[in-house]
Amino acid sequence: MIIVLKAGATETEIDQVAARVRALGYAPHMIRGEIRTVIGAVGDERGKEDLLSLENLECVETVQRILQPFKLASREIKAEATQVRVDGVVIGGKRVVVMAGPCSVESRDQVLEVAAKVKAAGATILRGGAFKPRTSPYAFQGLEEAGLKFLAEAKRETGLPIVTEVMEPEKVGIVAEYADILQIGARNIQNFSLLKRVAEEKKPVLLKRGMATSIQEWLLSAEYILSGGNPNVILCERGIRTFETATRFTLDLNAVPVLKKLTHLPVLVDPSHGTGHWEYVESMARAAVAAGADGLIIEVHPRPADALSDGPQSLKPDRFADVMTRLRRVAHAVDRDL
Amino acid sequence: MIIVLKAGATETEIDQVAARVRALGYAPHMIRGEIRTVIGAVGDERGKEDLLSLENLECVETVQRILQPFKLASREIKAEATQVRVDGVVIGGKRVVVMAGPCSVESRDQVLEVAAKVKAAGATILRGGAFKPRTSPYAFQGLEEAGLKFLAEAKRETGLPIVTEVMEPEKVGIVAEYADILQIGARNIQNFSLLKRVAEEKKPVLLKRGMATSIQEWLLSAEYILSGGNPNVILCERGIRTFETATRFTLDLNAVPVLKKLTHLPVLVDPSHGTGHWEYVESMARAAVAAGADGLIIEVHPRPADALSDGPQSLKPDRFADVMTRLRRVAHAVDRDL
Amino acid sequence: MIIVLKAGATETEIDQVAARVRALGYAPHMIRGEIRTVIGAVGDERGKEDLLSLENLECVETVQRILQPFKLASREIKAEATQVRVDGVVIGGKRVVVMAGPCSVESRDQVLEVAAKVKAAGATILRGGAFKPRTSPYAFQGLEEAGLKFLAEAKRETGLPIVTEVMEPEKVGIVAEYADILQIGARNIQNFSLLKRVAEEKKPVLLKRGMATSIQEWLLSAEYILSGGNPNVILCERGIRTFETATRFTLDLNAVPVLKKLTHLPVLVDPSHGTGHWEYVESMARAAVAAGADGLIIEVHPRPADALSDGPQSLKPDRFADVMTRLRRVAHAVDRDL
Amino acid sequence: MIIVLKAGATETEIDQVAARVRALGYAPHMIRGEIRTVIGAVGDERGKEDLLSLENLECVETVQRILQPFKLASREIKAEATQVRVDGVVIGGKRVVVMAGPCSVESRDQVLEVAAKVKAAGATILRGGAFKPRTSPYAFQGLEEAGLKFLAEAKRETGLPIVTEVMEPEKVGIVAEYADILQIGARNIQNFSLLKRVAEEKKPVLLKRGMATSIQEWLLSAEYILSGGNPNVILCERGIRTFETATRFTLDLNAVPVLKKLTHLPVLVDPSHGTGHWEYVESMARAAVAAGADGLIIEVHPRPADALSDGPQSLKPDRFADVMTRLRRVAHAVDRDL
Repeated sequence: MIIVLKAGATETEIDQVAARVRALGYAPHMIRGEIRTVIGAVGDERGKEDLLSLENLECVETVQRILQPFKLASREIKAEATQVRVDGVVIGGKRVVVMAGPCSVESRDQVLEVAAKVKAAGATILRGGAFKPRTSPYAFQGLEEAGLKFLAEAKRETGLPIVTEVMEPEKVGIVAEYADILQIGARNIQNFSLLKRVAEEKKPVLLKRGMATSIQEWLLSAEYILSGGNPNVILCERGIRTFETATRFTLDLNAVPVLKKLTHLPVLVDPSHGTGHWEYVESMARAAVAAGADGLIIEVHPRPADALSDGPQSLKPDRFADVMTRLRRVAHAVDRDL
Repeated sequence: MIIVLKAGATETEIDQVAARVRALGYAPHMIRGEIRTVIGAVGDERGKEDLLSLENLECVETVQRILQPFKLASREIKAEATQVRVDGVVIGGKRVVVMAGPCSVESRDQVLEVAAKVKAAGATILRGGAFKPRTSPYAFQGLEEAGLKFLAEAKRETGLPIVTEVMEPEKVGIVAEYADILQIGARNIQNFSLLKRVAEEKKPVLLKRGMATSIQEWLLSAEYILSGGNPNVILCERGIRTFETATRFTLDLNAVPVLKKLTHLPVLVDPSHGTGHWEYVESMARAAVAAGADGLIIEVHPRPADALSDGPQSLKPDRFADVMTRLRRVAHAVDRDL
Repeated sequence: MIIVLKAGATETEIDQVAARVRALGYAPHMIRGEIRTVIGAVGDERGKEDLLSLENLECVETVQRILQPFKLASREIKAEATQVRVDGVVIGGKRVVVMAGPCSVESRDQVLEVAAKVKAAGATILRGGAFKPRTSPYAFQGLEEAGLKFLAEAKRETGLPIVTEVMEPEKVGIVAEYADILQIGARNIQNFSLLKRVAEEKKPVLLKRGMATSIQEWLLSAEYILSGGNPNVILCERGIRTFETATRFTLDLNAVPVLKKLTHLPVLVDPSHGTGHWEYVESMARAAVAAGADGLIIEVHPRPADALSDGPQSLKPDRFADVMTRLRRVAHAVDRDL
Repeated sequence: MIIVLKAGATETEIDQVAARVRALGYAPHMIRGEIRTVIGAVGDERGKEDLLSLENLECVETVQRILQPFKLASREIKAEATQVRVDGVVIGGKRVVVMAGPCSVESRDQVLEVAAKVKAAGATILRGGAFKPRTSPYAFQGLEEAGLKFLAEAKRETGLPIVTEVMEPEKVGIVAEYADILQIGARNIQNFSLLKRVAEEKKPVLLKRGMATSIQEWLLSAEYILSGGNPNVILCERGIRTFETATRFTLDLNAVPVLKKLTHLPVLVDPSHGTGHWEYVESMARAAVAAGADGLIIEVHPRPADALSDGPQSLKPDRFADVMTRLRRVAHAVDRDL
């Protein structure tokens, strides 16, 4: 790290800071500028933040990081791309993976109908929420285990593996019985108890970015899972919160190339939550594939206007099939399959 | 709600939307404008969002809310201010309540020293984290139950009630054994499983705003606790995420008068997390009291440069005592005590 | 517009508001809900905001717009897409237009070298700044008219039309002598004096979105130019300001489908300013084309590390040529040329 | 500055970067860490950004600033607080200065009525817009010079100095004939032509923060005026753009202590634009004074519901007088007058 002292710091103060740096296990390296003195603290600062508290010293202006604070998620530790395998499906390979299905599992018929249709259109993983994080306590909260059973039935009928959300540590066991991929939703990106718990599972984890989570914090949340022993983390961009209200969130596709530079983990994009309007889903899905995303997760509902959640952003099955046809051409144009 | 149809919607389409509105239990009320037709859906929409899915209809442009979606948290339901009582301390009364203490409980000595000093300076509640939500898995994660025991000892010595964070449903029981106020941190503002669990407790809940939580969403999270049976919710503004990097977060004091208009619940402000720098804490504490906050929560550490978390934003005990003296004058200027 | 009254508004108050609505030239239409009364103000509210001041009445809670406030920029006024023609180049047609060149014109040699190279790679318009808006007064401020002359020379040699920025009303005349497209930069998106002045020109205007400009405000800025008599407005998304610091700005590609729905004007994307890092330019350029953008504006510099401005985000000519080759494939995949 | 090289940079690359640093006039200072090499570039980097372009080199990861980029605005250059004097009024002294008046000058009667009333309530400067920056081209654009004449008449009658906005370089002359303080609005914070032009005047400049302007950028805009020869710059926080929609903008009071640390210039706060709702103005005005602001600028209109602009956020004169009485008590509590 770089410790910038205030202008006018005395020699005694500089020595004291250097001593603190040494006491914390780093080698201090002094740079005396015309206006300020700067101390480089040499050592492996990754995974540590002890030096940051030096900012409380009266003579210290700021402490700046040099290295990214995550380790296992980093390309510097592991250069080759991670591929996560779920049944026959490879996430992070040449083929762009499409996960599709309803926001909420609402009934047996609904999920079986959607599963058959998204499979026919080319989706390779079925999504659907049984435990639902809802902003209002009065909104539909999901069918819970009954919903998981419907998903399992849809899997038996179609062969599609299942991705579904888990919201609390105590429910990881039951969800993992049915799900092939455990989804951590945007609102739980820094629910560290939950991250530690899914790290103990062998099943892959789909880790959605929080709506105010920086890319660095997101990778630190991934690091919780990786350092806990589960290497199968899939990142999913789903829109951040900005001042713009024309879309429900601002889908941040810049995250795709930034993540591809910083980490070896596969990167998915959710254009349904990211925009919040079905009319914008296709454009952003195409853009995500062109930007280099490894996959998409898209909401499909047979009758969106009757949906118990997120109707405005769901595609009808026919439209989804058309979108898939056009997406395939974009995938080929960037040397991917779909 | 107000359903705005697209320009060019046909009579048939308008009738269909009206029928859907009726089917959902609302009375449709047509306004035919020069360019668009608008349908007012008359009924108590609070706590419901079924009409929102009509946005998926091709002929619908947008669906706009008229009423705030929360009920029990609203001033319209309960006009008089809620006062939360903890031992002898009233939160939401004439006296501005100051909660103070270290970010993390680090040792018995540390917490006893701080407790005695903040009490002497006029704080009436002791804060301190035993379970710590940390962005990095490699950072100090808290002393857990041992930390709770040190807090309990500090309470016995000083008489100060305890506020401390709880991070997962399974830990609510153990934390509630020691704590007088259960704190829900910013990262758990939409951890709905946790909200439902603390709603079952009788103990007051300090509900911190998330870093990207709108005021409306924040009150819906409060609604989870209220509707679950626990009326003792205290709101705490602690800074939102914006583009500005000169402060760690942007403490949003505008939330104070907005909340005072919308809700009867007491409102606290955390200038330590809100700014992230000890040098800005006093100014923002004074501003919070002048804006009408019912209390403050301030980090105090005997040796901030050695703190295991949040050193940069902690005050030393002597400085805290000085700040309290000056805060008292501001409180009197707005007809409050402190 | 929709005027929402406070709960408890009296009949007298309701009548007074209705009278005000009538006095402003709208027909009031009353909807009496269980909790609140709502007044629909029927009339063409576009281009007006007189009703908004009713929010100051004690009995009024909010005033909500039904119609977008712009008119001439709207798809409702003009359904077919606008095509802007510059010499032989059509912006808004089937071919994706690429504007390329240095951030700043730095010397005659620099601009001639870049012009030849970007033309060879397939760019059809040359960009380059002669008047530069710089955050710091000590930074290079541009070659001004000398720079315009170099651009003109590059045009004579290559045939490429020129797009260059104009920063103040008094300079519109001189810039228009040399430029084929007048660029309004992000920092001047609400410099209304400048917008009114370029509206008097016949030359097309490239209107960049401001870093905190909502899409609605952006189209109102376009409306200044359209209503002033110049129909040749080209919109350009170039990144908004958010909390994320991994990129210089957050390029908001969601704006592409949103604009395509709301307006008939052509839409360009600037991945260079949008990301601020050359390593991310190609991904976001591909994504922009896949999302449906009508063109791109990309910074190219022969020696970026020596650039007098925006070196970090500039591509070298060779890399730009490679990017163009790959972009062409994406364009074909979405039925466009490039 | 600190130049962080990529992991794996070769000795040759390190030497090349060092040579570039030297060529740009800085002394390179090497720190070889375990994972990366860092080069400190020693020299006075303030007011320069030449080193930033090194980020384009393939072997460079990032270039980080050590010193703030402004000079004349900095406390390091001038430790004592600047006091700006306008007729008898001192801005930046012990007395909190209140500027009040209508958003727009609408008529002779309106401005004379408001001027007399705000003076009676204790305001010492009269505000009022004659040239109005309006988001929509169809909104009232101000009375222009006729409005300036009404302001001048109000000054003759009341003795209150005038602050009014100027929107373009060509109008600075005419506005300066009537105004005592030239206001640069939020939308022109990076209208550098205008900043350079007001720098040539002797009259004080009220420089409002832009809605997406960082504090660092804001001080660089002040630097344009200071380095152009006009030392009388007054800063004014007026709300930034965030995701929160309960207020029109998010008034960022954190800026007050941050600016007090970084700069010697006086700091005002505008709670009217900052919140956009008259009901929140008093709370935020009190908070601003408690936070340490040197003054306030508040919108007052005799009949806000008829206002031609910004009615929702204007106070009636009687309410303003009450607010002033209560503000005075807060000012005394922080050892200021009002």
